[in-house]
Amino acid sequence: MTDTAAVARAFVSTLEARDWEAWEALLTPEVVYELPQSRERIRGRAAYRIFNETYPGDWHLRPKVVIGDDERAVVWFAWRLDDDAGDAQVFFEFDVEGLITLVTDFWPEPYDPPERPAGLVERW
Amino acid sequence: MTDTAAVARAFVSTLEARDWEAWEALLTPEVVYELPQSRERIRGRAAYRIFNETYPGDWHLRPKVVIGDDERAVVWFAWRLDDDAGDAQVFFEFDVEGLITLVTDFWPEPYDPPERPAGLVERW
Repeated sequence: MTDTAAVARAFVSTLEARDWEAWEALLTPEVVYELPQSRERIRGRAAYRIFNETYPGDWHLRPKVVIGDDERAVVWFAWRLDDDAGDAQVFFEFDVEGLITLVTDFWPEPYDPPERPAGLVERW
Repeated sequence: MTDTAAVARAFVSTLEARDWEAWEALLTPEVVYELPQSRERIRGRAAYRIFNETYPGDWHLRPKVVIGDDERAVVWFAWRLDDDAGDAQVFFEFDVEGLITLVTDFWPEPYDPPERPAGLVERW
C-alpha cells in the first residue's frame, strides 16, 4: 500500500529543491494538473514540468500539514514568492502503483472579514 | 482509533442538516475555529455554534473529497450561498477521544489566470 502522505511530501520537497527528475518520478506520464480557481488544466508530465520550471519569481514551499489515506493526499503548505507569502493547499490522487495521477491546487487570498455577531471573533 | 474521515463527514452533514446538537457532540468544549485568510479566531463550542447558527443566507455544503489519518482530516467541499457557489476546504485536528479540537477553513476565490507559457494550459 502506497504511503500517499510520503509521496505528497516528496512532491513538495522535490519542487522546493528544483529536483525535476525526482519530481517527475512521482507522476504518471498522463498526470493532470488543475487550478479550479482560474479554471486552468495542464495535461501530461512534460507540460507540467515546463510550467513549473518556467514559473516566474523566487518561489519557496514549506509543508505545514500533510494527510494521506489509501487513495488521496493533501498538503497544506506555506509559500513565498519574492516578497509575498501565504498558505495554499494541494490535493493528490494516485494510481495503484502510487504514482500521482491528478494534482489540484487552491490558492486562498487574504480578505477583510464581513461584520460578525458582536463578541464572538478575535483577530490576529 | 478514531475514524477521523467519518467525523469530518459528520461535521459537514450535521451542519448541512442544521442539527446543532449532533454537530456540537463532535467538538470539544474548548474547540478553536480559525479563518487564516481574515485572521479570525473563535474560541469555544458555544461561540462557534452561535457563529454558525446566525450565519446569514441560505448556505449549503456538499463534501467532494474527504481524507483522514490518525490525527487529522480534511474536507474539500462545494458550497452554495444564495446565488453564489464555489469550493472550499476545512482541516480538522482531534483529541485522543476523537473529538475535534481545531477547525481551520480556507475559502479560495476565482481569479483570472496570469499569462502562461504558450500551449501549456487549457481552460474550462
